Parts: sequence; structure tokens; C-alpha cells
Amino acid sequence: GAAAAAEAAAAGADPYASDPARHPALIPRSQRPFNGETPGSLLAANPITPNDIFYIRNHLPVPHVDEKSYKLKVEGEGTRTLDLSLEELKTRFRKHNVTATVQCSGNRRNEMSRIKQVKGLEWDQGAIGTAVWGGVRLRDVLLAAGLSEDDPLVRHIHFEGFDRDPASGEVYGASIPIRKALSYGGDVLLAYEMNGQPLSADHGAPLRVIVPGVTGARSVKWLRRIVASPAESGSHWQQRDYKSFSPCVDWDSVDWGAAPAIQEPPVTSAICEPAPGTTLSAADGEVTVRGYAWSGGGRGIVRVDVSADGGASWRPARLLPPPPGAPQEHGAYAGAWAWTLWEITLPLPQPQGPGGPLPATVDLAVKAVDSSYNSQPDSVAGIWNLRGVVNNAWHRVSLPLEP
Amino acid sequence: GAAAAAEAAAAGADPYASDPARHPALIPRSQRPFNGETPGSLLAANPITPNDIFYIRNHLPVPHVDEKSYKLKVEGEGTRTLDLSLEELKTRFRKHNVTATVQCSGNRRNEMSRIKQVKGLEWDQGAIGTAVWGGVRLRDVLLAAGLSEDDPLVRHIHFEGFDRDPASGEVYGASIPIRKALSYGGDVLLAYEMNGQPLSADHGAPLRVIVPGVTGARSVKWLRRIVASPAESGSHWQQRDYKSFSPCVDWDSVDWGAAPAIQEPPVTSAICEPAPGTTLSAADGEVTVRGYAWSGGGRGIVRVDVSADGGASWRPARLLPPPPGAPQEHGAYAGAWAWTLWEITLPLPQPQGPGGPLPATVDLAVKAVDSSYNSQPDSVAGIWNLRGVVNNAWHRVSLPLEP
Ligand SMILES: [Mo]
Ligand SMILES: [Mo]
Repeated sequence: GAAAAAEAAAAGADPYASDPARHPALIPRSQRPFNGETPGSLLAANPITPNDIFYIRNHLPVPHVDEKSYKLKVEGEGTRTLDLSLEELKTRFRKHNVTATVQCSGNRRNEMSRIKQVKGLEWDQGAIGTAVWGGVRLRDVLLAAGLSEDDPLVRHIHFEGFDRDPASGEVYGASIPIRKALSYGGDVLLAYEMNGQPLSADHGAPLRVIVPGVTGARSVKWLRRIVASPAESGSHWQQRDYKSFSPCVDWDSVDWGAAPAIQEPPVTSAICEPAPGTTLSAADGEVTVRGYAWSGGGRGIVRVDVSADGGASWRPARLLPPPPGAPQEHGAYAGAWAWTLWEITLPLPQPQGPGGPLPATVDLAVKAVDSSYNSQPDSVAGIWNLRGVVNNAWHRVSLPLEP
Repeated sequence: GAAAAAEAAAAGADPYASDPARHPALIPRSQRPFNGETPGSLLAANPITPNDIFYIRNHLPVPHVDEKSYKLKVEGEGTRTLDLSLEELKTRFRKHNVTATVQCSGNRRNEMSRIKQVKGLEWDQGAIGTAVWGGVRLRDVLLAAGLSEDDPLVRHIHFEGFDRDPASGEVYGASIPIRKALSYGGDVLLAYEMNGQPLSADHGAPLRVIVPGVTGARSVKWLRRIVASPAESGSHWQQRDYKSFSPCVDWDSVDWGAAPAIQEPPVTSAICEPAPGTTLSAADGEVTVRGYAWSGGGRGIVRVDVSADGGASWRPARLLPPPPGAPQEHGAYAGAWAWTLWEITLPLPQPQGPGGPLPATVDLAVKAVDSSYNSQPDSVAGIWNLRGVVNNAWHRVSLPLEP
């Protein structure tokens, strides 16, 4: 566990030595800690992402938590302290399933780095996935701890993980506003299941938070402690990371207090198929494009537009049926926690006469609209930020075209 | 009133003859019905927009409703019918004040028309304003009518006005989702006051709806009837207007059922000063730029970036204190119904040596970020739609530069 890893680190041993094995299809973006993303073709093929290829975002070594002796502590302002075993959680509270997409704030960061270097993992578009999460409502647990919806002193709910920095000893932590934590319709879960299976070590066993419609960094894995508080979490990841700034702000001028911690991310979309590097053939006559679209805050996807000419003209894509457990109407105003997969078949440019000229590339682009009619910025430059987060510019893939 | 106007129309008389006088500062966009917008300089100068220069958006002739005989009817699925006089409303229910911005869905439509003609009033950036609205909570009135939050048959709340089309007889109407209507934090008001004054005829006397964080078309004026229903309002303005589509959709191909009615609008911002046509002088050394930023759904403004080089580089503007009654923290996650005014002083380009070359124009641009980190599209083309609604592209103002 965490203590063992810290001891190992102190002894000069590799604190990552006990990390679990990962599926070979995951594309690694770092090894220590392990971070790996799902290939686009596997995202687009599965409304629910299979567990073993779900992207992994670890900030620290994977803690191994003994499920039998596990206790969740709930404490802080306005609460009676609770210590709950996994068995108590499962038996004292009603089980709920929530179909929700989880996305890293840094998804699609590599497009920002291409403009100007940013600090962070070089994610392509695969740091996102959708699962049916099973567990108990955070709301129910907080109410059982005596928290009142009207307590003016409680503004934020903190989550602390068992994962710990081997060097500094800092524990992973994050917080969400009380309104989201206590909201009946907010659907925040303490999850022990992912697609009907117990959580794996990489995904937070035995218990993690799932904050639907909120950036992945708040869905704390290996949950050890919940704290009710007047203030936000003071953790590094809440205060000095996962925030976005004006493009003019650099590492010398950044004032971390000037921007709010990312909670709900903006509307986004990405092309998953064809994969970058695919050569298209004009003789095929057409190309089928597939991908995902998603927005924060439970705002459903209303429309996805796809372009084959770099954004000069657009066609609306066909939206696939929402995953099981998600609202079955597209563009729901609330509770649309899951992504929308989409596809469209577009004609390819044809030579003007035999051997006639053909564009060298087909420049695909996608943009989505959510239920509050937010859409995506055209280009990355205007939203570039030193940490490379919340990139939701039109997603562009240019593919070579052969006759 | 409405009946008189209809009779007048039938008799061939002008149904708009009894419309009230308007402040000469309002910029008219149509006369029958009257629609007029607030000049930018007056928006930027006032955190709360004065009543007499608040933009007016009328779909039909102004009905003149007798306050003494006025009755509001509340009826429909799951309710006991209520008929409430203005006096009963004021005495049976607690009074609340809500500071909220109201914006027409067509604000900034004229930028869309410049690309390709759209149908609608040619609004510049002034079809927006902010007031302190006084009245009773819609929630309280609905609960008094016996509506239950758990009634699965009630999904939408309809509002009908006293205003009526003189030709077709159709009454103005709109609806909002039940979740918003009944939400304690949703702050939907039945308002009889605007900035401490009784509503004027143009703004809906004696009673109107204010739906904070939602597009103006749902804040029905001259409120006659509230209906609880399983379905959305069937009105023209809910079903075949105030929706946005892909840029490829034209009046021959439009399928009104394919897009949801606009409720929460996307994040937007605009430059109000200097006014278009102002000539800048490089000798002044600098220019002060002022404007507003606002987002739907109660999402506060986190940041406003301003460019003096057409969007190549950006500086964050100073955000002015929120108007009275609005959350006093910028970038609030909820309840930020009011706009954020901003200002910034930027250096002007200087000639390289005496008589040296100078750019012909200073190309100002602004974009805002809301608390869900949504930002604005770079250009109008990607969000162009046949009805010219929800234009939230970067707002650009190019000003001639003299030495
Ligand atoms: Mo993340
Ligand atoms: Mo409107």
C-alpha cells in the first residue's frame, strides 16, 4: 500500500514496482506514474468503454488497499464522524448506477504543444472514457453523517486518496462545491463497481468518487477520507494545477489564485476514425468519420458538425443512441453525463477528368453544440494556456488523398 | 388591450397606435412591433441598466392591461386552478429581488447577416440589459397551486402573454423545463418591479416572467396564464423560432423538430466602447476598451481577454465589481445571473520613427470564459444559422488609426 511504497522510496526502491500490469492496447504517455490513453478506434467502437482499455490517469504510485480492513472516514464541519467499511457502505446505503463519461482536463493537450510548449502529459484525444459506475450516492452518505443542506459553513466537500507522493508525502486530494455534492440530481457517486466489475487497482479499488459532468481530477480514486469544509481543498491539484489562464500568462507571471479550479469542462468533440496517418483513396468515393462529443455539467449534445474542407463547410453528423443508462433524448438539459458517439459518411473530392488535379489532403474537422448552445472555438491559439488544459478547439485531422 | 388592438386591426386601424412613447436614445430596429436597443456606451456605463434605456423586444403590439381587474391564471396538469389578482400575488407570497441580465437570442445578429443574409431584427450588441427584478418566486406560486416536485406528468411550465397577433390571433407563449421552474436556486420570478419601479407597458406591466440565465424569449411579458404540462409550449416562438442549426441548413431544408428550443444561451461578450467609427490617434498612446460579458445558466464570468491585433495576442481585462445583488465573487458556479462589465487600457501602435508607417486600423477583439471554462468561437461562419441566433463569436471592432 501507500506506506509500503513510501518505505520503498525511502529505501531507494522503485515506488512503482508494485503497479499492476496494463493492457497492451493502451498508448502510454508516462510510465512512472503510469498514464495511458485509449486508441481512437476503440473509443468510437464502444458506447461503453471496456474496463481494460479505459484510459488510466495516475498522479502517483498505485496504492494497494486491503478491501477487508478498508474504512472510509467522513468528517469535518457540520458532521458526526463516520468510519465505514466497504460492507457497511454497501448495506447501509442504496445502490445506484450512473452512466458517466470521465475525461482528463489535459485531453487533447498535444494540440496545444504544437503551437507552443506546455507542461503536462502529451495526451492525444484518448484521455476519455465512459462507464456504468455502481455505488452509493455521496449525498446519502453526507446526510447520514448529519450534514445539513442549509449549513452556511459548509461550502466544499474534499476527497483524499490513499495515493501519496513518495518524495514529498503529499496525498492526492481535490474538492467539489457543496451544491454539486449534495444535489439529488448531481448524481455524485462513491463507486465500487465499473461496468459491473469491482474497481481494478488502476481505477481506484476498492472505492472512488465519480463526479459526473466534472473534470476527471475531482473523481478521486482510492478514496480514504471525505471532509466537509468552508474552503476548497488546499491540495496542489486543486490550487496550483487544473486551471486555465489567458494565452499571455507564462510560468513567470502565473497567479494561481486568479483562476478558479476547473470543475465542469466545456463542450468538446473529437474525430476517432479514420486515424491520423490513414491515406484516403478518391476512388473509394466517400469516407466514414466517427468520434465522440461531450460537455460538462450534464449538458447533452445537441448537434455535431463535420467538415471535409477544413471548416469552410459543415454537415451535421448522425448522433448514435446514448449509452445504456443515459437520458435517451439527445440534448437533454440535465443529467446527460455520458458522451454522444457520432458518425457521418462524406463524399471525397474527385479528380476533374482522368488524371486531373486532386487536393493533396482531406482536412477533416469536427465541432459540437451542447444543450446550452455552447460550441467550440475554431482554433487552439485563443485558448492556449501554459498548463495545456481544457483544449476544446475544433478537432482537426488532415489525411493524405490519393487518386 | 389585446382585444382592442385586435378589433382595431379588424377595422383596418393601426394595432400599434396605442404603443407607448420610447426614449430617444434607444436605437430602433423595427417600429411595428417596436424593437430598440441600448447604445453600447450606455451599457458599459451602467452595471444596472436604467429602465428607460433598457432594450425593448416586442413581438406584437403592446397590450394595455388593467392592473385593477388583472388576474393571473395558474392551471394544468397536477394543479388546482388559481386565479390571482396582483394584490393577492403581492400579499400571499414573499417578495424577492433578483439581479439578472436579460438578452435577446438575436443579439449581435447583424454580424451573421454580414456573412450571409439571415431572417430577423438586425441587432447590434445592445439587445441586452441588467436589472434588479422584484416579484414573487414562480416556485412558490406553483407549489401553492399544488404542483408536486415528483409529479412525473409535469415536464414543462408554459407562459402565455396578453400580447396577440392582430392578424392570426396567436398569443405569445413560451415554456421552460420543470426543473428550472421549480428549482429553489433557479430564481425564476413573476416580476412586477424593475429596478424598484412598477413595470412599464413596454416591459410587461403589470406582471412578467423573469427566467434568470435563460434567453429573453422565455421571460414572457404581460403574463396572463401559467400552464403545467407534460409537453413544451406549442407556440411558434418555442417550436419554429429561437433554435439554431448547422450552417448548411437553409429555409428549404430546415427541420424545426431537429433542434431544441434555446434555453440557456452560451457565453458571450462585446466591446461597447470605443464605438464603431471612432478614429483612434496614436499620439494618445493608449486606448481604453469597455464592454460586457455574460453566460447562460448562472455560470459566472471567469476571465475576459481583449486583443488589439485581431486576436493574435490577448490581455486579460479588469473585471468590474458585480452589480448589486449578484454574487460578489467572479466566476461563481451558480446563481451568477448578471453580466460582468470589464475594462482595459491597451497601448496603441506607434510609428517607427517620425512619419514612419502605422497600421491603418486597430483591430479590437474580445472573448470571455465562463465558470465551466466555455469560451467563444473565433469566427461567426462556423455558428452561422438561418435565424441568426446565439451569435457568440469573438466580438470584433476595427477602428481607423491616425498618427
Ligand atoms: Mo486529469
Ligand atoms: Mo428574443
